[in-house]
Amino acid sequence: MSTAVAGKGLEGVVAANSGICWIDGEAGILSYRGIDIHELAEHSCFEETTYLLWNGMLPNELALREFTAQLALSRSLDQRVIDLVRSFPTAATPMEVLRTAVSALSFYDADEKDNSHDANVRKSYNLTAQIAMIVAIYDRLRKGKEIVAPDRSLSHAGNFLWMLTGEEPSETATRTLDIALILHADHELNASTFAARVIAATLSDIHSAITGAIGALKGPLHGGANEGVMRLLLTIDKEGADPVEYVRNMLAARQKISGFGHRVYKTEDPRATHLRKMSEQLGNDSGNPKWYNMSRSIELFINKEKKLNANVDFYSASTYATLGIDIDLYTPIFAVSRIAGWAAHVIEQLDDNRLIRPRAEYIGPPYPTHWVPVEERL
Amino acid sequence: MSTAVAGKGLEGVVAANSGICWIDGEAGILSYRGIDIHELAEHSCFEETTYLLWNGMLPNELALREFTAQLALSRSLDQRVIDLVRSFPTAATPMEVLRTAVSALSFYDADEKDNSHDANVRKSYNLTAQIAMIVAIYDRLRKGKEIVAPDRSLSHAGNFLWMLTGEEPSETATRTLDIALILHADHELNASTFAARVIAATLSDIHSAITGAIGALKGPLHGGANEGVMRLLLTIDKEGADPVEYVRNMLAARQKISGFGHRVYKTEDPRATHLRKMSEQLGNDSGNPKWYNMSRSIELFINKEKKLNANVDFYSASTYATLGIDIDLYTPIFAVSRIAGWAAHVIEQLDDNRLIRPRAEYIGPPYPTHWVPVEERL
Repeated sequence: MSTAVAGKGLEGVVAANSGICWIDGEAGILSYRGIDIHELAEHSCFEETTYLLWNGMLPNELALREFTAQLALSRSLDQRVIDLVRSFPTAATPMEVLRTAVSALSFYDADEKDNSHDANVRKSYNLTAQIAMIVAIYDRLRKGKEIVAPDRSLSHAGNFLWMLTGEEPSETATRTLDIALILHADHELNASTFAARVIAATLSDIHSAITGAIGALKGPLHGGANEGVMRLLLTIDKEGADPVEYVRNMLAARQKISGFGHRVYKTEDPRATHLRKMSEQLGNDSGNPKWYNMSRSIELFINKEKKLNANVDFYSASTYATLGIDIDLYTPIFAVSRIAGWAAHVIEQLDDNRLIRPRAEYIGPPYPTHWVPVEERL
Repeated sequence: MSTAVAGKGLEGVVAANSGICWIDGEAGILSYRGIDIHELAEHSCFEETTYLLWNGMLPNELALREFTAQLALSRSLDQRVIDLVRSFPTAATPMEVLRTAVSALSFYDADEKDNSHDANVRKSYNLTAQIAMIVAIYDRLRKGKEIVAPDRSLSHAGNFLWMLTGEEPSETATRTLDIALILHADHELNASTFAARVIAATLSDIHSAITGAIGALKGPLHGGANEGVMRLLLTIDKEGADPVEYVRNMLAARQKISGFGHRVYKTEDPRATHLRKMSEQLGNDSGNPKWYNMSRSIELFINKEKKLNANVDFYSASTYATLGIDIDLYTPIFAVSRIAGWAAHVIEQLDDNRLIRPRAEYIGPPYPTHWVPVEERL
């Protein structure tokens, strides 16, 4: 059999055809279905962007109204799933809870045994609405607060903030989160999306694929990085250290700084541009520019010292912090958005499926090594 | 950036170096750490094989005794996990239940936040013992039976049968299952193992990786195939049809026959050789050779007609049926074994990690397609 040896971590290997997302890592371009992320961040909303990812084109007025209504209607969780989340220990991380609860959602999804295109679209509406609900509900439960019922008149971003805080969210907070959700909604074959496609390609169900994707997103080399950035900012603040000096010492000790560099982008991550702007504006508006200022000094230093650019995770940390969101919800919020892309990729995979099954280069003991009775072993 | 376009489904692409499993698909050779699967099936047991997969060599007497004792000691489930499984609807498929319960295990694993090599070995003992327990416990619960406490004096295979049936298993049944577990324990970068490595490579935790792997195994193009084989045999039996005629009609209608062909093997799957033998022997010994005979006629027909060989799934169906195991436990039993390989691969991945992040070939709308206001859309 002929085999081709790929770069480690499949770097630069084309693993699938996809019509969802196009990235030019040299030029710093990210686009969904051909539309530049800068245009979407400026003009679109999460609902419209999700429609675009799922359907390949922007919706007309009627389609957008129907899509938005359907997504709002899907804000419903079986009481047994709520009871399940309530039974989880309050020390569990929100990503473990989300992974487990999403896996359990399949028990109560009427389409569980139907893996058709249409059934997976229906399940995608449910999953998109339910992931946001689970994140909000668990955060309230672990804090001993009452669960807040969904408000179907609000946008996806607005309803999430409402269910999280129990307060009507400001326009600024809603629009900030909405833009963050647009920016995080898809990113081609990132690790969690690739995991989802590998799982879906066995013709397993979409709940399996999304559960696996959540597990992948949890990792600090992927979605978990935004939490790493904020933990660094908090440590620097607590120690009253100079941010640049602190990071300089980390580099000297060969420690990794979360939020910089990207496998695909060789220039600035176009998502960082928007998150930087939002972080600065929120900081100024709220009278608390501390996290933005600290982030900006670190960024300029790392740019100069290591020739590395901030990625999507770097300014999402200070943005979410200024919105008053707990650190360990940053990665779950990534999932609240990325479900749009995961669902699009799972459905695209199944529309033209082939099992994803690569080979390994064997580097173990020679064949044949023989089995010997236990008493003859050293 | 230079990219290499891989075959669809990453066919023939080397995605990792691995010292665990070597397969020669042309010659029909499968080996774990250099030792031929035929020698292991004949002489080894699941515990010894798992030690081999995890440690790269066969254990000496002391090491084997300690390993076996440690695995038996790990037969312990937090009462809250048992309560969780009890709360699941009895209509849930065992694979959904296993995926959800394994995800929840991380809540109660003392090493949850420790992703070191040693902690992952400890978690692997737990996961190996716990997956078998969860499968047995849920099967009893959904049938309204009492849970059977683990027996730490029994082997992994023996204890599973004990917890499943509540009866002391026969030597034949135990040895049959033990061999089946050896045969299924690893298979290089199969889809579920590859999913586990993609997830682990983000530096997420091993529970995330194994949860994702279970989701992938569930698919009918992977572990789910053995259930497909048995459903076919049952349908033929129920309709009183001639197996060869029935399958001939399926081929004419371009239907896929589960249990034949393999991405890697171009000759007989060496695991099928053993499962065929066990299926025949069990059939004769039990006085019920029906499933074996039916399977054998189908196999000979498909060999001749389609030049396709039986794979691991084909004779595991009739083997498990003759052991009296429910159909929808066949894939969970695959997981009871494959956890050995999954754990070995996750630990190997983390010992020399790089994020697994391929690229896609873009086939969507041209860039730039511009955003236009909703009222201007058709």
